[in-house]
Amino acid sequence: MSPSLEFWFEFASTYSYPAAMRVEAVAQRAGVSVVWRPFLLGPIFAEQGWNDSPFNLYPAKGRYMWRDLERICAAQGIAFRRPSAFPRSGLRAARIACHHADAPWVPDFVRAVYRANFAEDRDVADPVVLRDLLASIGEDRSRLEAASAPEAKGALRTQTERAAALGIFGAPTIAIGEELFWGNDRVEQAVEWCARAELP
Amino acid sequence: MSPSLEFWFEFASTYSYPAAMRVEAVAQRAGVSVVWRPFLLGPIFAEQGWNDSPFNLYPAKGRYMWRDLERICAAQGIAFRRPSAFPRSGLRAARIACHHADAPWVPDFVRAVYRANFAEDRDVADPVVLRDLLASIGEDRSRLEAASAPEAKGALRTQTERAAALGIFGAPTIAIGEELFWGNDRVEQAVEWCARAELP
Repeated sequence: MSPSLEFWFEFASTYSYPAAMRVEAVAQRAGVSVVWRPFLLGPIFAEQGWNDSPFNLYPAKGRYMWRDLERICAAQGIAFRRPSAFPRSGLRAARIACHHADAPWVPDFVRAVYRANFAEDRDVADPVVLRDLLASIGEDRSRLEAASAPEAKGALRTQTERAAALGIFGAPTIAIGEELFWGNDRVEQAVEWCARAELP
Repeated sequence: MSPSLEFWFEFASTYSYPAAMRVEAVAQRAGVSVVWRPFLLGPIFAEQGWNDSPFNLYPAKGRYMWRDLERICAAQGIAFRRPSAFPRSGLRAARIACHHADAPWVPDFVRAVYRANFAEDRDVADPVVLRDLLASIGEDRSRLEAASAPEAKGALRTQTERAAALGIFGAPTIAIGEELFWGNDRVEQAVEWCARAELP
């Protein structure tokens, strides 16, 4: 069995976008597989006393982040357009990705949502947009409907609690056992760590 | 004249340690010179409503940072010991580095202070320790005394105000004109940017 890492991400998270777009390719080259772990930052930020993205609460940090993200996307060769609304709720998209976690289309769905939000300025909180994105990867609206059932909602809550219990405080975070790697900047290092199985 | 970058740093800042230890060597290899810009994060954090390091205010982030810093120092081949007190005031050290900014011994002094704090667990807020560190690089206590004159205190205040005006919100930050690169992770990218003179 190949070593695997957990990629913890939040659809509203800006730095999760470039990370989500390349993590699978980077991992595959190293013989590592990716377990996609959507979660919600909202409850974790609320614990820290934040009721909004820190990039909105701290404007200097926010201004820097948008410029930094623009440079990162240019270097990575992926499209970027600053969304006209930020943050957009990733709740519905995260329920879909969480409920269908083992489905083979989930990685494509994740990337389609990030692209829509951060390259095409589409409102990924809107069910109509999500149905469109599902259709674009050959899936239908039943995926969205299934993800609004009570057990699907509960699964995402449980997963978010697990993120907090792991010590996750931001996104993206790669977890390999108890070893955490926070941020888009750590993707390559985490994959390398996982490939070498440098577990504590 | 060679292109130059401004390295903005705070002696209490953990991630400034590995950055300060290598920035000059990385820059020199690229034909770039470094202008050392000590400043204080305290007033900038206070503006954001923080009366302590965010790594103390947000424990999950703090736990992660110490582990991350340990990995970074190991990879960079520099010693690291978690300080028994954090943060230690960098006020006196910053006044010295600011007042004597153009002196050729300042880069060695900066590195000596970081090593003392983050590899040797010494209290770099203590004037006795600072005199020792000055002596270790062949300078005497008069450097410390000169830096406690009113104009030296004012110079550091002015420099901290300039940091805030530039949009700096954390350390280390490399500034090239108005282009900012925040964090130890951005040292190589900033130097490369500067060498190519990709000014906006």
